[in-house]
Amino acid sequence: MRKLNLSKAFTLMESGPVVLVTTHDGKKDNIMTISWTMVLDFTPAFALTTGEWNYSWAALRRTRQCVIAIPTVDLIDKVVGIGTCSGAETDKFEKFHLTPVRASRVKAPLIKECLANIECKVVDIVQKHNIVVLEGVAAHIDPARKERRMLHAVGDGTFIADGRRFDRRKMMASKLPAGV
Amino acid sequence: MRKLNLSKAFTLMESGPVVLVTTHDGKKDNIMTISWTMVLDFTPAFALTTGEWNYSWAALRRTRQCVIAIPTVDLIDKVVGIGTCSGAETDKFEKFHLTPVRASRVKAPLIKECLANIECKVVDIVQKHNIVVLEGVAAHIDPARKERRMLHAVGDGTFIADGRRFDRRKMMASKLPAGV
Repeated sequence: MRKLNLSKAFTLMESGPVVLVTTHDGKKDNIMTISWTMVLDFTPAFALTTGEWNYSWAALRRTRQCVIAIPTVDLIDKVVGIGTCSGAETDKFEKFHLTPVRASRVKAPLIKECLANIECKVVDIVQKHNIVVLEGVAAHIDPARKERRMLHAVGDGTFIADGRRFDRRKMMASKLPAGV
Repeated sequence: MRKLNLSKAFTLMESGPVVLVTTHDGKKDNIMTISWTMVLDFTPAFALTTGEWNYSWAALRRTRQCVIAIPTVDLIDKVVGIGTCSGAETDKFEKFHLTPVRASRVKAPLIKECLANIECKVVDIVQKHNIVVLEGVAAHIDPARKERRMLHAVGDGTFIADGRRFDRRKMMASKLPAGV
């Protein structure tokens, strides 16, 4: 994992990939699968939707920290597996053979096997809508990784991999923030 | 456009596509390009991030209605074009040769050329974070359309088309809501 400039971190989330979110509750690490996320700002800031139905919720609310890890298509069965069991009974790092790596700014771990990781602090919780507002405070990317296609959940049990890429940088120039 | 069961509408948004959002301010229709959205609930409910910097904001706030239209890869230059000019000076339906179609529950128009359209009411605005909370009230899909690959913005001026699809319905069975 190599440090990634924070000004580029929103580009890891803008396309709407399914992500893994890690927490550390003071005793143990946990991971959840989330596809209900959005970018809120280039700074970067993110929103995700979760709530009390989720075992990670307590750690997220109490520690006000997490890591957003970006998996790729080769990890699909881990992503689905993590999303369909609970940290209440399962050590998910162990069960899914994932490697926690110490983060620089938060106690939640990075996931070594992922393409990228964004360390985040919880800056607000909009309880009425189950929205957690996050500020990214550090970002990391694995430049050596061959498989870089992210995964997108459809919500019906199917998933879509990143396909063809189109370059519209010229048309978009007036709208792009500095540093991307 | 054929009516789509509301219980399936969230699956149009879950993968994080770039979308077109139409409004009608009482006099004229407008369209904006948005990729900062997320699903909030299966009901369906959605969040999107926008604010005063956006010309559609005034209509969205006042009428409390919009339509989320889902474009596909063949519409990429319209999507980028719509996102890089303002409704203050431009009739975007005319400029981009798009056809407004009367919606059933809101005054904002559907876009005929899109794969799908979700009629929405604004149920809340979380001003502090520029988050608009939407409830989907009707949905439509074009079953005859050949090109069905959605587009995902990366945020750096490039866009990614939907690629290969993976079926994990069996593994996900315990987590899927009724009716998808």
